[in-house]
Amino acid sequence: MSSQYLLNLRIRLPVLLLLLEAALILIFGFFVSYDHSQNLPRDYPVFQDVNLMVIFGFAYFQAFLYRYGFSTIGFNLLLAALGVQWAVIVDGFLFHFSAGKIRINLQSILTAIMSISTVLISRGAILGKANLMQLIWMAVMEVTVFTVNRWLAVNLLQIESHVSVMHVHLFGAFFGLMVSWMLYHSSLSWKAEKERSKPISDMFAVLGTLFLWIFWPSFNSVLITEQDKKWTAIYNTYLVMATSTIAAFSFSIATSKNGKLSMAHIQNATLAGGVALGFSASNIQQPWIAMVLGLAAGTISVLGMAYLQKHLDPALQIHDTCGVLYTFGLPSLLGGIIHVILILTNHNKNLSVFGCSALIEVGALSLSLCLSLFSGLLTGFILTCKLWKTPPVTKYFDDQVYWEFPHLAV
Amino acid sequence: MSSQYLLNLRIRLPVLLLLLEAALILIFGFFVSYDHSQNLPRDYPVFQDVNLMVIFGFAYFQAFLYRYGFSTIGFNLLLAALGVQWAVIVDGFLFHFSAGKIRINLQSILTAIMSISTVLISRGAILGKANLMQLIWMAVMEVTVFTVNRWLAVNLLQIESHVSVMHVHLFGAFFGLMVSWMLYHSSLSWKAEKERSKPISDMFAVLGTLFLWIFWPSFNSVLITEQDKKWTAIYNTYLVMATSTIAAFSFSIATSKNGKLSMAHIQNATLAGGVALGFSASNIQQPWIAMVLGLAAGTISVLGMAYLQKHLDPALQIHDTCGVLYTFGLPSLLGGIIHVILILTNHNKNLSVFGCSALIEVGALSLSLCLSLFSGLLTGFILTCKLWKTPPVTKYFDDQVYWEFPHLAV
Amino acid sequence: MSSQYLLNLRIRLPVLLLLLEAALILIFGFFVSYDHSQNLPRDYPVFQDVNLMVIFGFAYFQAFLYRYGFSTIGFNLLLAALGVQWAVIVDGFLFHFSAGKIRINLQSILTAIMSISTVLISRGAILGKANLMQLIWMAVMEVTVFTVNRWLAVNLLQIESHVSVMHVHLFGAFFGLMVSWMLYHSSLSWKAEKERSKPISDMFAVLGTLFLWIFWPSFNSVLITEQDKKWTAIYNTYLVMATSTIAAFSFSIATSKNGKLSMAHIQNATLAGGVALGFSASNIQQPWIAMVLGLAAGTISVLGMAYLQKHLDPALQIHDTCGVLYTFGLPSLLGGIIHVILILTNHNKNLSVFGCSALIEVGALSLSLCLSLFSGLLTGFILTCKLWKTPPVTKYFDDQVYWEFPHLAV
Repeated sequence: MSSQYLLNLRIRLPVLLLLLEAALILIFGFFVSYDHSQNLPRDYPVFQDVNLMVIFGFAYFQAFLYRYGFSTIGFNLLLAALGVQWAVIVDGFLFHFSAGKIRINLQSILTAIMSISTVLISRGAILGKANLMQLIWMAVMEVTVFTVNRWLAVNLLQIESHVSVMHVHLFGAFFGLMVSWMLYHSSLSWKAEKERSKPISDMFAVLGTLFLWIFWPSFNSVLITEQDKKWTAIYNTYLVMATSTIAAFSFSIATSKNGKLSMAHIQNATLAGGVALGFSASNIQQPWIAMVLGLAAGTISVLGMAYLQKHLDPALQIHDTCGVLYTFGLPSLLGGIIHVILILTNHNKNLSVFGCSALIEVGALSLSLCLSLFSGLLTGFILTCKLWKTPPVTKYFDDQVYWEFPHLAV
Repeated sequence: MSSQYLLNLRIRLPVLLLLLEAALILIFGFFVSYDHSQNLPRDYPVFQDVNLMVIFGFAYFQAFLYRYGFSTIGFNLLLAALGVQWAVIVDGFLFHFSAGKIRINLQSILTAIMSISTVLISRGAILGKANLMQLIWMAVMEVTVFTVNRWLAVNLLQIESHVSVMHVHLFGAFFGLMVSWMLYHSSLSWKAEKERSKPISDMFAVLGTLFLWIFWPSFNSVLITEQDKKWTAIYNTYLVMATSTIAAFSFSIATSKNGKLSMAHIQNATLAGGVALGFSASNIQQPWIAMVLGLAAGTISVLGMAYLQKHLDPALQIHDTCGVLYTFGLPSLLGGIIHVILILTNHNKNLSVFGCSALIEVGALSLSLCLSLFSGLLTGFILTCKLWKTPPVTKYFDDQVYWEFPHLAV
Repeated sequence: MSSQYLLNLRIRLPVLLLLLEAALILIFGFFVSYDHSQNLPRDYPVFQDVNLMVIFGFAYFQAFLYRYGFSTIGFNLLLAALGVQWAVIVDGFLFHFSAGKIRINLQSILTAIMSISTVLISRGAILGKANLMQLIWMAVMEVTVFTVNRWLAVNLLQIESHVSVMHVHLFGAFFGLMVSWMLYHSSLSWKAEKERSKPISDMFAVLGTLFLWIFWPSFNSVLITEQDKKWTAIYNTYLVMATSTIAAFSFSIATSKNGKLSMAHIQNATLAGGVALGFSASNIQQPWIAMVLGLAAGTISVLGMAYLQKHLDPALQIHDTCGVLYTFGLPSLLGGIIHVILILTNHNKNLSVFGCSALIEVGALSLSLCLSLFSGLLTGFILTCKLWKTPPVTKYFDDQVYWEFPHLAV
């Protein structure tokens, strides 16, 4: 890495960030004001649960690359800080714009935080392979398209607003995979030494996983306004996390040659249940259905990582650092399908009405899938541009490209 | 360790887990439904505090063995995920079964999470010495007996329900010690190199300790329904944590040969106050009483670890990896005794009535003690069976028996 | 370090701690009782957020010295446990003493926890350079003076009670700098090898930083009683954290010779926005003002660390281990100035009234500044006394002076 490369970044990156921030402040100054009429004090602790998940949980969850911890955590914070401001604005203009003003409340910031998790999921697919400028651009693109996607789902397809946010996992995973596909480089096809985890970095990663596991009931229930449905979502999510954990351990041992557990399986598959339940958290009335869903999601996630990843990734020419396809992609697809089936079977009185609402859900899923694939492709294509100064493959997965290390100083 | 051993586990363990899970799903399917009538939104954040303590706090609290971090944290999650489902059912059948249905609510899941902490405490005594199959069996046994114990205390002895749950520390500690006694092996009598902590693993362990310390007021107050008593429990617990911390630091220095602190003392004894206060958290009206109790509990805990453990453990042929006797066992015994004394002295108007209620508390303590000792003995005896494939002593405290390490792969 | 030194501590420290604790228990016994009339259940989760910040967040935030992690975290807990008890009493006697009794509630413990953060900030300036006896003495002194300072501000200057607590950052930083000045030693002028961080200790430090970042909206809003103002403080704090994060990343890269990020900048400057907003969190009605303030605070913090620290510290003969001047000192000064300007400009109807209230705020800031500087100087002077057995400079930043390390035992 020539020092010219970094000196270039030294000027471009601060200028880009500060210009973006200046633009954000101007937009906030002209359009945004606070609204206190809708807030309930009881919502604040659950807001903080979700904030903790996104800012802390996701950061440490992906911090398993032992030479890339600083970048994983630091860039996560920067992307969230920037993305939340941008998401508030896009969401505000699309959903809450009236009389020339956007009036924001706790719900707005919460929705922004949840929207930004698409970016953090997508980033998992290109973790260690993109520089900060590329990530910032991706964040701005992805939050915009995801919010447009929500707007289409809510206004055209009449999807409930809280369900539309639950598309984050699906959207984030497939967007990220497309970006990863565009950034693919043939020398990435083998697991490099730097791409491995060490026990100590895995200990940090499990830390993040556990916080995501614990607060997932908050994530799946926070936007639901009806109290009984909120409780149903909380119970279902707790059970689904429990059963996908059972599946993760069972199949991690069963798929191993020598009967040993893989920490990567445990970290990812224990969360698959929460992902899969997203769409139907408040609709499932029988605990056993949630439990079966969790078991299935955990199973798919482990089996995918154990058997599919090795063959699929090279075949598709995708390098998916965190395995987001298996933690978020497949489980959310499963969850979407189950959601549609549940709508059809739960209400068998009037099949035509529910057939229609099932069709709408299929439409919403297809919309998210298409938009995420297409916009991911476009974003990835733009990111291959030389302007972004992509780091060379030899500098992938390495904090030293971006961070000073005082202990290495003479 | 022959590869045959692990291949054996590779089949048995997934089959055992999946069969158990299938049984749980069937029972949930036939008997369990959701109940929303009792829930208060304000209970959810405190529920999450306790969830965080049990899933994350306990896991990292015990993660001080530097070669056993993955197993400590991973198995903790599995035991909790499995145990909570089982505890909901056992608790449901014993306490909430009517008209062929168990109606569960937040309280049910909360009680299940708290009940599972008996297992996590017991596990501390055999940490690093039992395999996953043994732990699963222990979890199922212990949760069952503990819930039966609660049922006896509540229905026969008319103990308040929230006090009956506070027996977790006493029950968990003595159950674990009995299991540890049965699994005792003479070559364990010296502190092996692998049984030591390293600064880095201690940093993770303190992390867990601090989360337990911080949220202990939630643990001691969450099940109390009367608001004033809830607040009293919160204040008392905060003060008791503070004073047992003072005791921990004072006596850790005082008992050291060279005036240095021991991280093991600090980790364990700072929590002893919260353990000891469990029974009487809402009954103590004067802050100074709580403070003295905390000071005493912290003192007992450090003195026990510093002077008793070295002599008592070999004499009793117990190997208590985490020192649960000194963190949970003795402090909860102290707390039980103080609870009885407080009942007798707090209400000196009508000694006969309160003498009776004191006697009942003595009965409840004895019941917990007897049941935990007896069922622990029985469980331990069953676990010595060859069927379980206990790992050999040379493989104790070692993650490599159970986990794949990618960084060691060629 | 002669063994005589440690043996000396072995007796003195426990005696000092236990005598202090005995005195606290006596005072609690004679004067303190519980008050349940003022408590709202919804306050408890936010109380726990702040508790988590102070007990856990501050501890890990300062744990970047790779050979001083145990002391950083352990002493933090001890100081908090002791300081909270003492702060409850001092606050009680000054603010809530009536009819010979102090009636405490959640608010009292909360105020005590927030007051103790002055000590934890000050400690950052002398991290690694003072022993436990010195820190205990400093804690007792500082909490007392800070509470007196609050009393003067509230009763003489009619400052709102919740704003008076927000002086913690200003007070803590300048008190600590004065103590650090008194303890200055010329051999400290170069960055010793032991004073550096390692990637692994920085990973723990970022953990603390993130928790502080996430829960800062709770810190800035918890004491505000009016609901609308509380929400305003929450929104403003969230935005201010976001923009100071942008500033931190931008200027960390811009000020680096080779365009790399410095983890020390990121850790400290991302929090500067929350510090600066403290005084005016509930008064700023336009989001863009908060955002500009956050950007300015983050910028000042990084620029201070990058350019000022190298020259100012040696010139002033101050050794500021954690850079508290740049994380807490300058940002809170900035926040104070902005607070005064906002009062003057926000209400331009009746300038004389608001000029008066602006003058009062200036008075409050000057009072905090003067009292912190003077009492810090006095405390530092007392700590230079030989009685305290200050460790020699060669033993600075080293856990082995205070802690036993089992893995080093033969």
